[in-house]
Amino acid sequence: MRAQLGRRYRLSASHRLHTEALSEAENRAVYGKCANPHGHGHNYTVEVLVGGEIDAATGMVCDLTRLDGWVSREVLEPFDHQNLNTLEAFQNLVPTTENLCIEIQKRLRKVLPGDLTVTVRVEETSNNFFEYRPEGA
Amino acid sequence: MRAQLGRRYRLSASHRLHTEALSEAENRAVYGKCANPHGHGHNYTVEVLVGGEIDAATGMVCDLTRLDGWVSREVLEPFDHQNLNTLEAFQNLVPTTENLCIEIQKRLRKVLPGDLTVTVRVEETSNNFFEYRPEGA
Amino acid sequence: MRAQLGRRYRLSASHRLHTEALSEAENRAVYGKCANPHGHGHNYTVEVLVGGEIDAATGMVCDLTRLDGWVSREVLEPFDHQNLNTLEAFQNLVPTTENLCIEIQKRLRKVLPGDLTVTVRVEETSNNFFEYRPEGA
Amino acid sequence: MRAQLGRRYRLSASHRLHTEALSEAENRAVYGKCANPHGHGHNYTVEVLVGGEIDAATGMVCDLTRLDGWVSREVLEPFDHQNLNTLEAFQNLVPTTENLCIEIQKRLRKVLPGDLTVTVRVEETSNNFFEYRPEGA
Amino acid sequence: MRAQLGRRYRLSASHRLHTEALSEAENRAVYGKCANPHGHGHNYTVEVLVGGEIDAATGMVCDLTRLDGWVSREVLEPFDHQNLNTLEAFQNLVPTTENLCIEIQKRLRKVLPGDLTVTVRVEETSNNFFEYRPEGA
Amino acid sequence: MRAQLGRRYRLSASHRLHTEALSEAENRAVYGKCANPHGHGHNYTVEVLVGGEIDAATGMVCDLTRLDGWVSREVLEPFDHQNLNTLEAFQNLVPTTENLCIEIQKRLRKVLPGDLTVTVRVEETSNNFFEYRPEGA
Repeated sequence: MRAQLGRRYRLSASHRLHTEALSEAENRAVYGKCANPHGHGHNYTVEVLVGGEIDAATGMVCDLTRLDGWVSREVLEPFDHQNLNTLEAFQNLVPTTENLCIEIQKRLRKVLPGDLTVTVRVEETSNNFFEYRPEGA
Repeated sequence: MRAQLGRRYRLSASHRLHTEALSEAENRAVYGKCANPHGHGHNYTVEVLVGGEIDAATGMVCDLTRLDGWVSREVLEPFDHQNLNTLEAFQNLVPTTENLCIEIQKRLRKVLPGDLTVTVRVEETSNNFFEYRPEGA
Repeated sequence: MRAQLGRRYRLSASHRLHTEALSEAENRAVYGKCANPHGHGHNYTVEVLVGGEIDAATGMVCDLTRLDGWVSREVLEPFDHQNLNTLEAFQNLVPTTENLCIEIQKRLRKVLPGDLTVTVRVEETSNNFFEYRPEGA
Repeated sequence: MRAQLGRRYRLSASHRLHTEALSEAENRAVYGKCANPHGHGHNYTVEVLVGGEIDAATGMVCDLTRLDGWVSREVLEPFDHQNLNTLEAFQNLVPTTENLCIEIQKRLRKVLPGDLTVTVRVEETSNNFFEYRPEGA
Repeated sequence: MRAQLGRRYRLSASHRLHTEALSEAENRAVYGKCANPHGHGHNYTVEVLVGGEIDAATGMVCDLTRLDGWVSREVLEPFDHQNLNTLEAFQNLVPTTENLCIEIQKRLRKVLPGDLTVTVRVEETSNNFFEYRPEGA
Repeated sequence: MRAQLGRRYRLSASHRLHTEALSEAENRAVYGKCANPHGHGHNYTVEVLVGGEIDAATGMVCDLTRLDGWVSREVLEPFDHQNLNTLEAFQNLVPTTENLCIEIQKRLRKVLPGDLTVTVRVEETSNNFFEYRPEGA
């Protein structure tokens, strides 16, 4: 039997939406107040959905302690309480929540066992959220 | 990279569930207290999920200002703080939340660019919700 | 030992904010879109807070089955799935949530034992709420 | 038109995660504090998603009164306010939330009409949730 | 300037409501299905409200790391993932949430500095909550 | 009749907790990862509670349009999507949420009519919140 297990993690970070590819006026038009020069911040809720077979002995899709370890090392330690714009991952990528979501999924994809699928959903505010679900997940 | 962007909107409206196709007794059996003659109301939460490619320059699936404009014009202005039964859309259609959900999706489908998919999910109360996800979304 | 016990109930109703004491223009100025003639609706969350001594034998402030009975009879049956403007309680009183909150508290005050205090808090939407806490509660 | 209707139910139960298939040390390694001998408990939120055609006359995917009856009989009565480990369903199955989710889906699948799909999602805590969505749902 | 700082903690536990002071029939009448012999469980949310002067240098009412330490040692370690009925604190006290709330407040009162007030609020389910606020807090 | 009206507003901002009054090591000890040099951010929920007499004609404690105007001008415009450390209000004050809460209350106190009380509660994350309730409110 295949099932999905979801687990929520929380991180706080600041960002500024701005790209060199656009003029100041275009940045302002596209990102509105998110382009303010000093940045602003969010509490992000990161939902990690792991799909896989339920292990017949343990009754679990994935050991939560191991999942917590992967998410801690790949997501919470590098991103929590940071300014996203200063991180290497966002040197050539605007730190929109779309891009943050995909960056998190890629990092987890690399470390999770290949027989598990991984979908990532990030809530940026209580009104906005983003999801990256790879094909077949 | 394709991702989904979700955004929540809120509207308050009243409705009465009742159809001429059924007798009074049948209406009462099917809709229970929702058939009360003076109507009642809800705070609806409308989640609009937009799927599409992340723009390489802006890092966004869809400009939120434009999305807000479409939802304002097509959904909030016609439906917020109204009695759904008095609206043209529900003259020949019972204003169940199933039908409201599909009506909202159709209106947004008409105005959103064709390369974006649109799924609509409506929370009627904290216990009931409805979703219309077209094939391929 | 005195403690407070809180219990949440939910009801859906419609209302229209409008008073004969004001002109049409004043009604519109004060109540905005809440004055729309056909009414609109809400899911109200009613929090009933009961304060009293913890009974040494049962460890409870108030028997929940009895509390549910009182709230059912005095609040849910008369108000749930109704149009508040058509009810007797609001014939000479605008059905704002302030007034609904006080009406609910008065009804419960009449039936609850005198050694219990009762405070009522009503959430009208996820952004607006109202509370009536009598002195000493 | 096909749509999904979702409805939330709540139940409180206790469980202990422990399997005879593993040694004490392995049980402790896999389940952590969830293996504590006296058990512990949760408020589970069970979301039942029913997919189907919207009935042209009633505007509904599924009669909520009938759905509530099925869920009451198949899920709430047997599981609410119980110790899951003592139930027949979990005599040879660890009562993880993965297994609870699948057990609930199977029971509802048996009683729901064949033209409706049924997906079950169980929130175990505000951080952990599980979903079983059969193919085609 | 005095302010209140609130912090939420979560714990899962099982309990059974039953007292030797009452007959079986009375236990069943008072506690309903909460008297089921094998117990059941909850995810409790414990809100700790600490009142005090804002420190002029740090801008804080209370150091969160120290608060977390006190709550961990006095509340989470003894109660999380336990069966409340088996604990010493509830040998002569029915483990209702009223009594749990007061027990938690007493334990924190003993270890928090005397110039801080402490109020405890426990959410037992999404519908029931309890608060113990000492005079002057 | 006096009642309380509460209204929720949301703002996103970044901050860094750091004071010149302490050494680097002390800053790190007091503020932990909140002292990270590049700052981080939050979605703050600001609850404004206004207490007063219910107007007999309108049935309202306070006109919501006027309240929204005051909060917009005094709170949302100066603080939303900003880095709190760069604002004049926090040049000599660490931008902890305790201090933000009191700053917001003072600003609203200045513009609200004198017969209304004003209490401010700020949720910094889903686990931390702060309240400033002046005496008599």
